[in-house]
Parts: sequence; structure tokens; C-alpha cells
Amino acid sequence: MFKHLFGTSLPIIQAPLAGIQGSTMALAVNAVGGLGSLPAAMLSLEDLQRELTILQAQGQPYNVNFFSHTPPTPDAQREADWRAALAPYYAELGLELDAIPVGPARTPFSAAAAALLAQVRPPVVSFHFGLPAPELLAQVRATGAKILSTATTVEEARWLAAQGVDAIIAQGIEAGGHRGTFLSHDLSSQLSTLALVPQIIDAVNIPVIATGGIADARGVAAVLALGAVAAQVGTSYMLCTEAKTSPLHRAALISEAANFTAVTNLFTGRPARGIVNRIMRELGPMQAGIPPFPMAAAAMAPLRTRAEERGFTDFSPLWAGQNATGCRNVSAGELTLGLVG
Amino acid sequence: MFKHLFGTSLPIIQAPLAGIQGSTMALAVNAVGGLGSLPAAMLSLEDLQRELTILQAQGQPYNVNFFSHTPPTPDAQREADWRAALAPYYAELGLELDAIPVGPARTPFSAAAAALLAQVRPPVVSFHFGLPAPELLAQVRATGAKILSTATTVEEARWLAAQGVDAIIAQGIEAGGHRGTFLSHDLSSQLSTLALVPQIIDAVNIPVIATGGIADARGVAAVLALGAVAAQVGTSYMLCTEAKTSPLHRAALISEAANFTAVTNLFTGRPARGIVNRIMRELGPMQAGIPPFPMAAAAMAPLRTRAEERGFTDFSPLWAGQNATGCRNVSAGELTLGLVG
Repeated sequence: MFKHLFGTSLPIIQAPLAGIQGSTMALAVNAVGGLGSLPAAMLSLEDLQRELTILQAQGQPYNVNFFSHTPPTPDAQREADWRAALAPYYAELGLELDAIPVGPARTPFSAAAAALLAQVRPPVVSFHFGLPAPELLAQVRATGAKILSTATTVEEARWLAAQGVDAIIAQGIEAGGHRGTFLSHDLSSQLSTLALVPQIIDAVNIPVIATGGIADARGVAAVLALGAVAAQVGTSYMLCTEAKTSPLHRAALISEAANFTAVTNLFTGRPARGIVNRIMRELGPMQAGIPPFPMAAAAMAPLRTRAEERGFTDFSPLWAGQNATGCRNVSAGELTLGLVG
Repeated sequence: MFKHLFGTSLPIIQAPLAGIQGSTMALAVNAVGGLGSLPAAMLSLEDLQRELTILQAQGQPYNVNFFSHTPPTPDAQREADWRAALAPYYAELGLELDAIPVGPARTPFSAAAAALLAQVRPPVVSFHFGLPAPELLAQVRATGAKILSTATTVEEARWLAAQGVDAIIAQGIEAGGHRGTFLSHDLSSQLSTLALVPQIIDAVNIPVIATGGIADARGVAAVLALGAVAAQVGTSYMLCTEAKTSPLHRAALISEAANFTAVTNLFTGRPARGIVNRIMRELGPMQAGIPPFPMAAAAMAPLRTRAEERGFTDFSPLWAGQNATGCRNVSAGELTLGLVG
């Protein structure tokens, strides 16, 4: 069914890893019959166009992924509170709070991106954090692309199915990086992949792809047995030769520290799973009242940069799912084949 | 491998549900070829002997489960703080704080229980919260029983394997009721079943049974694909005709509320997953500094009783895993067959 949907020979989607990989990894996955993904959230329109051109030239199915959050309204009080909470760390690292530059951009899907897609016509487009506004979504649909989005609850899956997506990515609580949550941020609604996937399959009439906690061929076999048409795998790709994962992040992924992860909103303002580090321990992983996504990232960025220069990950978002044991320092093509071998 | 280990024809263990079921449910599961469990933690020695006699008479393999926690040292300060936290609820319900009776007993495995096992010789004995002291464990081993215990981390699995257990029950974070955790109570170490089971399989050389989030035949197939020799299923049995689940608890399990569960220590002092209710929302599900297991239960019990008399579950431990959709009001035998059908 997955092959029919996307034209790939393997039931594997390489999860889009924004900031970690570009077309090079996707090409490697596509080449062996998986569905490689290009994360667009942190790319300029020019970079996106260049990357899409490369992927189109390969002539294989691929996925381009966008964030579809509502752009935040700046909140001066939240920003001030957040800076106050981080002030002791700024002092410790000899940084100036009033010199915070604009944070790393995480741009939601836009009219300009939709126009680009109309031109490029990518085979598969996936969204995280719900879907873009109806008129933008209609433009994507008009390109002929298959459309995917992420659900973290049965309610979100029903909502997405009602908007006419072609398949749903059911994201379990064990997944690394940002949770696709968009209807409720109540963590008590966030189920594991094993609990979530069959409930979503029963609730909708479209194919369901499983993601979260799938590290190797056993995990893939398990979610297929559960009824998913494919597995989306992220963390396992983070040590691949095509990944731009930082040396410090790579070291964390293969250390004992990777056994301890938590869902945190400290790094961007939205819940995302990463390896527990100093700032998560000291402030607690979830903070109410921090600047809205992605604005919380701005004040954290200088701390991260300075600490990483000194070899510390105290302020780094060490994105990882609950099972990093599938990480291998091989090409993404080889890793993909191992997921079905 | 599971059949070889326990002599059952189905790779299913009915999870011991203390306070919810006795030999009647276990007999029904055994009768169709599953491994029924008798939870001993809340039974007097006399009741335990009577129940074991009934199970022995059936002539089928079964499991008897014990808690193996260290009996707590009363802590007057914690008890006082806990009563102060609950005082507004006592006032609301017209109850007297100084009239708190002794709480529901949850007795750890004892020399008397070991002596009883030596006499009865049950085929399988499982433990929760680690293992009893070495001399008691040796007595159980001398009975010829297969010995199981629960691991919630790779570290716990390695520890249990080193003590010579015959198989490990890998309990994912989605499981309902008490977490078997015994080496660390750091929730960031608690993985989902999908993430945990393959990591434990790789770490030990004994069979691994999966539990947590397994609601139906798809869930069972998934954990077998993952490499588990069997699935232990709990929540799905809670609506069975043999279950003593209260009417209020039954109603909660089939309501929308069952979509929202959390790990909480409010009801007994140890982390356990249940449906989110008023007291969990208002105090937060995890409280540091409450009386040690099972002493936190004493002060909660009168609130629960009074509220339940009035039809409310505001103070009830509504144990449930993350997937209650497998609950069916049928016999435990029929439910068991459905798990492999």
C-alpha cells in the first residue's frame, strides 16, 4: 500500500531532520528505495529551490517537509521573564543579555513556498504542526503532491483526515525532536507509538505511517505488524555520514546520556524530545509562559554557542528519540537497507 | 520458546491486577492456554493459600505475583505534609483528618509467603519492584518455580539477569498500574515498550516478555515481531466479567477520559499510570516528599471512599494503560483468545 501511495520499494520514510540534513541524505535514501525527506523549515526560499532542484533531478520519489505553525505574536512579558530565567547562565558564561541576536528562523509554510511547489511539483509534501491555511493547502493539492501530516492523538488524526490528507504519520511520545501536536499540548494525551498507531488506524480510513521509537528492523517489523503501512525513522539517521549532526551531538547519541531523554519546550517554545542536559535538569524540561515557538530559541542560542565552543552541551537541543541504539556511522542508504534487512 | 518456558500454548500472560482480580480470572485465562496470574500483594496469607489451592487444582500453568518492595519506614514529617496537602479535600467532603484508618495493605514478599510457596509449588512466580532478599529468592528457586521480574530500564534488566531470573518482563512507560521500577525513579529513563524491548533483548541472554500499551492482537503481533517471547496484557482484562473493577472505574475505562492518563505517585507513593482525575490535575501527578509506598494510600483512602459513595472518582486510582480500547465486557478466556486471533 505504501509502494502504491508513494512509488517507493521500501516501507521506510527517512524523517525530516531540520538543521541536521539536506538533499544529500534524502538522495541516499531515495537511491535504495526508501522515501528520503528534505526538511524545509530552516531553509531560505533560495536554498529550498536549490535543494528541490537537486532532488527532482534524481527522478525518484521524495518528501519535502514544512512546519505549518501560526507565526507567533511577540510577547514582551514572556520574553522578559525568559531572559530573567536565563540571566544567571548569561552571567556565568560572560554573555550580555541585551546583545541577543534574532534566533534561528523556523518559517512556516508560506504563499511563496506554495508558488515554488507549484513550479517544482514534488511527489510528496508533509507538514508538521497541523496543516497550512485551507487556501495554501489547496494550492499544494493542486500540484498533485501526496500530502501527509503528523498526528499525536486520535483527535488530531480525525481532524487531518477530514482535511483530506493522503496519509497520517502517527507520532508516538518516544519520537525525537518536535512533537507534531497542534490541537492540544496536554502531555497526558500523548501516547506511545504502540498505543497510538492501532487507535488511529481504527479511527480513519487512510493509510497510517508510524514514527517514534523505531530504531532498527525489529521496530519496523513491529509497526508493520501493528497495521502501519510504513515506518518513519529519524534518530537512527543522525550518525549517518550525510548528517550534519554536530560532533558534540554525535557523542551524546552514543553515550549513556542517550538513555535519558525528555520532552522539553525550553529550546524553541514547543515540546520536543531530546537528551536531558543541564538546562533541562535545572529549569525542568517544560516551562509554562516561555516565548512562543520558535521565539524561545533566540535567548538560548548565545548560551548554546558559547557553551559548545567550550565543549559543553549544557544549552544544546540534543534531539533524540527514546531509542538511539540504531544510530550507525554509515551512509543513509546502508542504514535504510538495514531497516528492512 | 514461551511454551517451552511455561508450558502454555499461547504467548500471553494476563497481567496481575492487584485489587481487581483473583483466581477466577486466572483460571479462565489458563483454561484457554494463556498464563493467568494471581496478584498476591493485597491478599492475606490465608486468602493467598486458598487461591493457590484453587489454581493448583486446575492442573494448568499459572503465575503468582508478589510485590518485593522494602517495607517503608514511617516518616512523620512526610505524613504531616501529605495530610496538610489533602486537608482542603477533607474539609470539602466533611471528613476528619485525625480519623484516618490504616491504609490498604500492600505487603511485600515474606518468609511466610516463601514457606507457603515451598508447600504449594506454583509453576511460575513473578515479582514487581525488583526481587526479594537473596535468601528468600533462593527459597523460591528451590521450589522449582520459574521466576520472573519486571524491568523498566536496560540497567534493571541486566541486574535481574545477574540474579538469575528465568525471564524478564520489559515494562514500557505506557503500562497501567504500578511501574516495576526499582533502581531509579528518574522518569526520563522510562522508555516505551517499542523502544525498551529490543534494547533489553540485546542486553540479556534470557527471554523477554513485553508489557505496556498492548491492547489487542495487533499489539501482541507487534511485540512478538520486536523479539519478545510473549505479551503481558493488563488493561484489556479490566472490563472482563471475572474482574472486580468497580462500576466507576469501568465507566472511566470506556469514556473519553481514558485517552488521558499519566504516571502518578499520589495514590500509593510509587509511580503508577492511571486516568487523569481531579486530584492528579490539582496537585500535579507526581509529588516529591509524599509518604513512602504504600503509606501515601492511607490518607487518600477516606477521600476516595466518600467521593465514590457520591459517584465521583476525584480521588480514585483509575489504573489504566495508554490504550484502553482493548477492554471488552467478555470472559477473560474469550479476551485471551482474541489477543492471538
